[in-house]
Amino acid sequence: METAHRRKGRAARRSEAPARIVNYRHLRHPFTPQKVLSDDAVDAIHAMALKLLEDLGMKVLLPEARRIYADGGAIVDEAAEMVRIGADMVGAALTTAPKSIRIRAPNAERDLTYEDGALIFSPAGGCPNATDRIRGRRPGNLATFDETLKLHQSFDVIHKLGPSAEPQDVPAHLRHYAMMRGQLTLADKPLFVYARGRGQIEDSFAMIRLAMGLSDQDFTDSTWATTVINTNSPRQLDKPMAEGIIDFARAGQLSVITPFCLAGAMAPVTVEGALVLQHAECLAGITLAQLTRPGAPVSYGGFSSNVDMKSGAPAFGTPTHIRLAIGTGQLARHVGLPWRSAAGSAANVADMQAAGENHMGLWANLVANATLTVHAAGWLEGGLTFGYEKFINDIEALQIIAELCAPLATSPDDLAWDALSDVQPGGHFFATKHTMDRFDRAFYAPLVADLTNHGTWTAAGGQTATERATAIWQQVLADYTAPKGASDRGENIARFIADRSQAGGAPPPD
Amino acid sequence: METAHRRKGRAARRSEAPARIVNYRHLRHPFTPQKVLSDDAVDAIHAMALKLLEDLGMKVLLPEARRIYADGGAIVDEAAEMVRIGADMVGAALTTAPKSIRIRAPNAERDLTYEDGALIFSPAGGCPNATDRIRGRRPGNLATFDETLKLHQSFDVIHKLGPSAEPQDVPAHLRHYAMMRGQLTLADKPLFVYARGRGQIEDSFAMIRLAMGLSDQDFTDSTWATTVINTNSPRQLDKPMAEGIIDFARAGQLSVITPFCLAGAMAPVTVEGALVLQHAECLAGITLAQLTRPGAPVSYGGFSSNVDMKSGAPAFGTPTHIRLAIGTGQLARHVGLPWRSAAGSAANVADMQAAGENHMGLWANLVANATLTVHAAGWLEGGLTFGYEKFINDIEALQIIAELCAPLATSPDDLAWDALSDVQPGGHFFATKHTMDRFDRAFYAPLVADLTNHGTWTAAGGQTATERATAIWQQVLADYTAPKGASDRGENIARFIADRSQAGGAPPPD
Repeated sequence: METAHRRKGRAARRSEAPARIVNYRHLRHPFTPQKVLSDDAVDAIHAMALKLLEDLGMKVLLPEARRIYADGGAIVDEAAEMVRIGADMVGAALTTAPKSIRIRAPNAERDLTYEDGALIFSPAGGCPNATDRIRGRRPGNLATFDETLKLHQSFDVIHKLGPSAEPQDVPAHLRHYAMMRGQLTLADKPLFVYARGRGQIEDSFAMIRLAMGLSDQDFTDSTWATTVINTNSPRQLDKPMAEGIIDFARAGQLSVITPFCLAGAMAPVTVEGALVLQHAECLAGITLAQLTRPGAPVSYGGFSSNVDMKSGAPAFGTPTHIRLAIGTGQLARHVGLPWRSAAGSAANVADMQAAGENHMGLWANLVANATLTVHAAGWLEGGLTFGYEKFINDIEALQIIAELCAPLATSPDDLAWDALSDVQPGGHFFATKHTMDRFDRAFYAPLVADLTNHGTWTAAGGQTATERATAIWQQVLADYTAPKGASDRGENIARFIADRSQAGGAPPPD
Repeated sequence: METAHRRKGRAARRSEAPARIVNYRHLRHPFTPQKVLSDDAVDAIHAMALKLLEDLGMKVLLPEARRIYADGGAIVDEAAEMVRIGADMVGAALTTAPKSIRIRAPNAERDLTYEDGALIFSPAGGCPNATDRIRGRRPGNLATFDETLKLHQSFDVIHKLGPSAEPQDVPAHLRHYAMMRGQLTLADKPLFVYARGRGQIEDSFAMIRLAMGLSDQDFTDSTWATTVINTNSPRQLDKPMAEGIIDFARAGQLSVITPFCLAGAMAPVTVEGALVLQHAECLAGITLAQLTRPGAPVSYGGFSSNVDMKSGAPAFGTPTHIRLAIGTGQLARHVGLPWRSAAGSAANVADMQAAGENHMGLWANLVANATLTVHAAGWLEGGLTFGYEKFINDIEALQIIAELCAPLATSPDDLAWDALSDVQPGGHFFATKHTMDRFDRAFYAPLVADLTNHGTWTAAGGQTATERATAIWQQVLADYTAPKGASDRGENIARFIADRSQAGGAPPPD
């Protein structure tokens, strides 16, 4: 049989062929940034955000933050805890905030350049629960937290670590030790730190220094840790968040300022109104960071969507979410800073809704040219649950997007004249030299997608993509090996963790 | 309770508020066209496609078509059935092919303008089977065909009809009567006609004229019918397809030239090589249409993807599919014509794979600015099956995209200064006048997405989006009512169908 022969030939060839080379580690956006706002609207939103900060101000609950703002020229009403920030202060902050930030990783090959044009994915973050088809939905614990880090580590398209499942079985005053140990010993990607009070932040920074053998100065001169600062919209900055901005700025670490403005709830119901609020809160956070330490790494950010009209719950992947993401990108470019966005899903299970919402968010961030897309994989229930099968299916989407980032080279050979001449009308290209030379590395190999026909698929058990994903994450965990240097890093921090735990740890603020 | 009071107020208000006004009928692309090919690569592909047609030529199986090509100046080898087409002939065709085509519908409000910038969706087409969660997977029959038309008719975001399920219980020589009767009596959107031989085409055109009360001249002066012409890649045009191009051109009806170039199978394995072939075949079809009747409506088109390396099956929503769609758009704009693309899925069931692949294809076509996206809803198994639940979930995606097409107006009120001033830090916008005035129409209302929390969702049965879609299509079919004029159109063609059926119908070519 000609066909069988050909297939055998290809199979034999495959084992000799070089593996398909893919580099998902350092991605650049393939598309030009799109707009939903006119240039006039961008100007008007920026101007109104400045007016909001100057005329109405932010409520800032941390006295130290109010003092820093006041020292920078803000008008502070101590009794009301209100801080009115002048446009000149914001303007000064925007001149010192860096446009490009190198985020260091334990493995230097995983360092990231955080700047306009970069495309960075981080996984589902902040989830109190986790779910999978084997063990069901349950509160996050340390074993699950560590498993999620192994999943993050196993896919290059996840560029930064994230707190995918809160380890609730670890007492709150010791939890940050477990979270940092997991990151340093199970992975080698850029690290996150929760801004849960000064004590935990200082401990976390100390662990990074110890693990990596860095002096205080080495550490402060580079960006090793990232935190997300959520304002308490509208127009409020609570104590731990303000402390986070200050402590990260002082230590040269990255705060990602992220108002969570749900249009119709914590923000105006219109896209433009929600963006005025988000932009103002973002600029207030950036200003605090720059007043604390001019040049401190800080990111513009947003994660705004709308509430659902029926349930009042947050919705994701909606037209409003997409528009807010694209509009956020316009405003970030207006002030000249790299910025974060997010994908995500409100679905309760890894189903078509979950896939659809995530794809809408991912593509919104693609056409918006978001620097960092948080919650890019695994987010269910609007962030209340990390889904293992959702994570695997989302990785497929991220890998497809990552493939688009490598520009087509278009050499004369790619035009395939010889193959086009050789193959007769109605024939096929399977066996041409042009195909054989490229077949093993021409196409993306799916992770979850099953392309067999209905009969074969049915005979093999007729599993959905969600069902198939179970065996995939199980295999990924079975195949996992710790990265180079992991055990050294673990040893470097063991004594510190034991001593600090013994001394009572660091309780988060009330 | 303040909250309950507010909610009650909103619910009461809702019943009085005007319904949310959405117009999904005439969409324009919201994003600027993106590129995967350099301008030089576009030039090189175009030049090589012309060289392919001129030096190697197309095999054209229909003698009449070879004669038309020869009369237009092509070099024809009758023994080999090969037609070599000069670049000058292609150039002349490209000057007469229309850049904007008005596609008429039985309901004039559903007429479409087929031109660059328009965004038109048509449903899954060409499926021999259908599947749903109640009745399972089965061969298409007339009842199913008619049901799918009711589904197409019920969603404005489906702009054209398509043959979603082949009515295999109707004998082939009579099937076109049933398919046209269904379209004319169950819907009022633009019509499709299969190019299955001259007899069926003439019958179908006659039914349209009778149904709509058009003279031959009226009919020929407007575009009432659309057909898809698939070349038999590589470089072959079979008899029914050539006949279709000729007959549609003569009658002023629209041929959508669509090579189906699977990279690595019927086309070169590279994106650029596949595009050379697709572009050449497209230009050959357009040239035949324009030689037949200069100015005849004809569309540039492509539906190219890659084969799966494991199974040899077509894959969709892949990086190669996305790149080919965007590259096709670049080539269509290079020759200045509106163009068709497609979404679709190879999944065997309405699952996350199905959703993911469809979203990738839809967004590829969005950033490529495809004029017409075929198979936008319901396509499973690479076109072998129409899925009811997949259709409903895909409609959700299309509606979200359609929402993005209405530009933001950004009036001063949208910036929401009054609301931003009224709401205190840490407060909420639920009850502001700005929100209350807009709440009922600010946001897209989901069709399938369930945004309730996990407890509520579980208590309600814990259904996936695929499961929920069943009740939705059942309700849509229960609520369906025939459009205005449908019964008149049916009466107008009844006698013709009876007579023609009596006379033996019109068998498709062998």
